[in-house]
Amino acid sequence: MDKLEKAGWKTIKIKGLHQESVPEAITTEFPLTLMLDGHEFATIVCSPSELEDLTIGFLASEGIIRKADEIKELQVDMYTGFAHISLHQPVQPQQFDHSSRFIGSCCGKSRQFYFKSDARVAKTVTSKLEIKVSECIMLMEDLLDSSLEFQKTGGVHSAALATSDGLLYTRSDIGRHNALDKVFGSMLRGRISAKEKLVVFSGRISSEVLLKISKMGIGLILSKSAVTDLAVQLANDLGITVIGFTRGDRMNIYTHSHRVVDLHPDLQTD
Amino acid sequence: MDKLEKAGWKTIKIKGLHQESVPEAITTEFPLTLMLDGHEFATIVCSPSELEDLTIGFLASEGIIRKADEIKELQVDMYTGFAHISLHQPVQPQQFDHSSRFIGSCCGKSRQFYFKSDARVAKTVTSKLEIKVSECIMLMEDLLDSSLEFQKTGGVHSAALATSDGLLYTRSDIGRHNALDKVFGSMLRGRISAKEKLVVFSGRISSEVLLKISKMGIGLILSKSAVTDLAVQLANDLGITVIGFTRGDRMNIYTHSHRVVDLHPDLQTD
Repeated sequence: MDKLEKAGWKTIKIKGLHQESVPEAITTEFPLTLMLDGHEFATIVCSPSELEDLTIGFLASEGIIRKADEIKELQVDMYTGFAHISLHQPVQPQQFDHSSRFIGSCCGKSRQFYFKSDARVAKTVTSKLEIKVSECIMLMEDLLDSSLEFQKTGGVHSAALATSDGLLYTRSDIGRHNALDKVFGSMLRGRISAKEKLVVFSGRISSEVLLKISKMGIGLILSKSAVTDLAVQLANDLGITVIGFTRGDRMNIYTHSHRVVDLHPDLQTD
Repeated sequence: MDKLEKAGWKTIKIKGLHQESVPEAITTEFPLTLMLDGHEFATIVCSPSELEDLTIGFLASEGIIRKADEIKELQVDMYTGFAHISLHQPVQPQQFDHSSRFIGSCCGKSRQFYFKSDARVAKTVTSKLEIKVSECIMLMEDLLDSSLEFQKTGGVHSAALATSDGLLYTRSDIGRHNALDKVFGSMLRGRISAKEKLVVFSGRISSEVLLKISKMGIGLILSKSAVTDLAVQLANDLGITVIGFTRGDRMNIYTHSHRVVDLHPDLQTD
């Protein structure tokens, strides 16, 4: 940073008539360029933590790998901002299929394109997960409690892999897709099964998020935020339970409510 | 939608022990494909409103046009989700410079790449805007009041062009970049000068957002949300005033505070 590198950015804070100049912690935006078998594959702007997980999850989300052990070598150089990946079966640059001209709803070109390639690879999720309303509410509280960075700087999304009993691990990032990719990468590295797991998420559930959940093989996503119509329709088609607006003792169940086992029987629709 | 197309999506709403099934309004995610002189240029997932503004603002953000009258013809087909654009000076597909492998912090590939092309085009903003703290607070209140969709479905970002006296117009979208592009497009169509204007914004200020503000020639961005370190450094370099966390009677001024004219003189640093 420019003025106070370690202590924070010199910021004028105003509250009512009170004005003061203080060093303020500001969320880091870190560009990480993935070099795949020597070729530039992508540059991700992210929070600089768990970059191996992010790299692996990103490559899996992009369809380059299916398992972590397809990677021969992975080296992240924090100083230069490069991740060097080599695969056992190298991919040719022209196979990258990475230039689809699809712009995500959130900020940029989407990594996926449901209407073209994803519709072919997306598959129905058959998770046998069962969960109670009270467990959903507790998991969201735990996610928010575990996101200290968010509380400090207000600029970070969080995603966690969980069972109905509790969070297994949480990943945070300035990008909500990155937070999910970090969870995905960690699942692949640890060979953690998606069976009877759910994802607890701070961000909005768009079609892109939903497709990522489908690729992870996850049967339920529980979010603090809103959903979009396209995400709900996809979830309906793909057998994924979508719960949004999980705030305090409230939540909205949009699809496949059968996984929430303590609903009143009259409300169950599938 | 699947079950209740017009009335909303059949949703199970839970609040404490109360459970009910009601039709719920859900934010629309609309894919719009831009065909530029007959070639597929990009697909933007957006909220289906002000699509001409979005198209023009997007093309300007991407560096394809500088003025609205460079466009010979623009037709948006809401039924098929295509926008057909022809330019007076057609661009060749290989000139699109659109495949930079940069992944935005928010969700997908970035539309800009500061470290490569944007560093060349970004220019110092020389806005003479002057504003008071109380005016900033009032403008943010007005933005939130004008964003009815946000209140209804919770899934939409808003951006407004404003003077210190009040909002000129507000644009909303599920994508925060789209909301800004709609404001940009509307500026270009109306030949509205950026001089003495500011942008009032609901979303996080990342480096991408900041670069868009620079391209618009705007001297001050006022956001409800957080900022990133890269955005603050860019704003510092480009002469843009960045104000974040504008909530109630609070706000944080990160850069070029001289445009906020009623700060205590001891706090002014530039």
